Amino acid sequence: MGVIVVAGVPAVGKTTVLVKLAKTKTKFKVINVGDEMLALAVERGLLKHRDDLRKQHPSVQEELWRDVVEKIADRAEGTPIIVETYCSVKTPKGYMPGLPQWALKALRPSTIILLEADPDEILVRRVKDTSRLRDLEYVAHIEEHQRMDRVFAMAYATFTGATVKMIMNHDSSVEKAVAELVKTLEGIYV
Amino acid sequence: MGVIVVAGVPAVGKTTVLVKLAKTKTKFKVINVGDEMLALAVERGLLKHRDDLRKQHPSVQEELWRDVVEKIADRAEGTPIIVETYCSVKTPKGYMPGLPQWALKALRPSTIILLEADPDEILVRRVKDTSRLRDLEYVAHIEEHQRMDRVFAMAYATFTGATVKMIMNHDSSVEKAVAELVKTLEGIYV
Amino acid sequence: MGVIVVAGVPAVGKTTVLVKLAKTKTKFKVINVGDEMLALAVERGLLKHRDDLRKQHPSVQEELWRDVVEKIADRAEGTPIIVETYCSVKTPKGYMPGLPQWALKALRPSTIILLEADPDEILVRRVKDTSRLRDLEYVAHIEEHQRMDRVFAMAYATFTGATVKMIMNHDSSVEKAVAELVKTLEGIYV
Repeated sequence: MGVIVVAGVPAVGKTTVLVKLAKTKTKFKVINVGDEMLALAVERGLLKHRDDLRKQHPSVQEELWRDVVEKIADRAEGTPIIVETYCSVKTPKGYMPGLPQWALKALRPSTIILLEADPDEILVRRVKDTSRLRDLEYVAHIEEHQRMDRVFAMAYATFTGATVKMIMNHDSSVEKAVAELVKTLEGIYV
Repeated sequence: MGVIVVAGVPAVGKTTVLVKLAKTKTKFKVINVGDEMLALAVERGLLKHRDDLRKQHPSVQEELWRDVVEKIADRAEGTPIIVETYCSVKTPKGYMPGLPQWALKALRPSTIILLEADPDEILVRRVKDTSRLRDLEYVAHIEEHQRMDRVFAMAYATFTGATVKMIMNHDSSVEKAVAELVKTLEGIYV
Repeated sequence: MGVIVVAGVPAVGKTTVLVKLAKTKTKFKVINVGDEMLALAVERGLLKHRDDLRKQHPSVQEELWRDVVEKIADRAEGTPIIVETYCSVKTPKGYMPGLPQWALKALRPSTIILLEADPDEILVRRVKDTSRLRDLEYVAHIEEHQRMDRVFAMAYATFTGATVKMIMNHDSSVEKAVAELVKTLEGIYV
């Protein structure tokens, strides 16, 4: 079986939900693509802050990304793995697919889980989150980004045969999002 | 030339429209993927009711699906064929692409026809249809499913170069849907 | 690096924007797929008017398209090139992908720029443009076409890793669209 991808726009709550998931009896181990890329970039003396990654030369990013994906694919042999990543990343050149063809071939996801929230909830979370250098965006732009992410997810599914599951992560009900994630993972044959 | 795919969410009226099509002077022969899979599953002693198919272990479904697709691809040699299937199937793990990469490679559709209807028309049809074990859904969920199916269809088109045609199948005008289908098929060089 | 694709529905203003771009200090050279296909078709004695291209037998169109794409891919070696084309083309058989898999493999776009405008602006431009044989469409259909083009663009991005950038080209602000295009191209490492 392939890996499970958990994606969503910045500040949708991926890490919060996955930290809570780790406290359940899940067999899945979470790998955060950003963390892995950061570690590798720091190791190679390339940068200081996680959110600078996006501002690197595309070819540098792609090289890091390729190396990380290969490492993850290796580790996924025999272990149920959740890959925490972006479905698409906003760049000055437009929406960049988080999982282009070659990444999909390496990861072979069996399920892509899209965490979503109301755009205004996401905006407020970004404003409140002072630990990250988040780009602020209008609600309409966050809404567009979420819509684009769904489209990317369907294209990824076509490549891989993966299913696409949308899970809402509202402010008032993180536990509900975690419960739905647990239920989805239980339906996956490991 | 490749096959023609006719897809749409459950109860959109695929079978009704295609039965009426068969009564016209069309050269196209209809193959229903669900029927073929059911026949094969029964032959292999796997299940009793068509709507249980979705509840089978994914690997069983995939094996059946692969065998059926190959059979259809064989039969399509030299005969104009319409494949009646789903663009995507709702599973506990999310939307499952009905025509992932490997299926598209085998079938090489030249046109994908998406039958659509108003979500509330579809809901009423599902409630009325007592011959099938249909899962009931809210109107908003049916709307989402139709939107996702369009996205999947575009991804399928990118893989294959197929065109994507949306045809509305309203309660009051099945004949109109059939006429539009006939016209579309006439535009296809056989 | 691959080529830059600039796409958009008929009368969105692709040519206008690109003619203005050519007057800036851009390094990019624009190639219009329609012009190239027309030249080739005339050379082969196939047709008289550009807008007849769409009405040709699909296999004729595909052959022309393949030859043009190969020519463009050749010319793009070492030169920064913008390819002006359609994301999808409306045909009697439905939406036809402008850049199916094999075209993407040849062109390897690094960025896909989608020019968009309000559907009613596009309608008025089509009505006013007497130099082209444009099919008239309802505003709702133009809106749908633009929505489908976004979906196709994301599928293309998944294939190639290209980014997708939407740029609005309003009646009152062509200069703004050109400026945004210039800025986007500056972000592209040539």
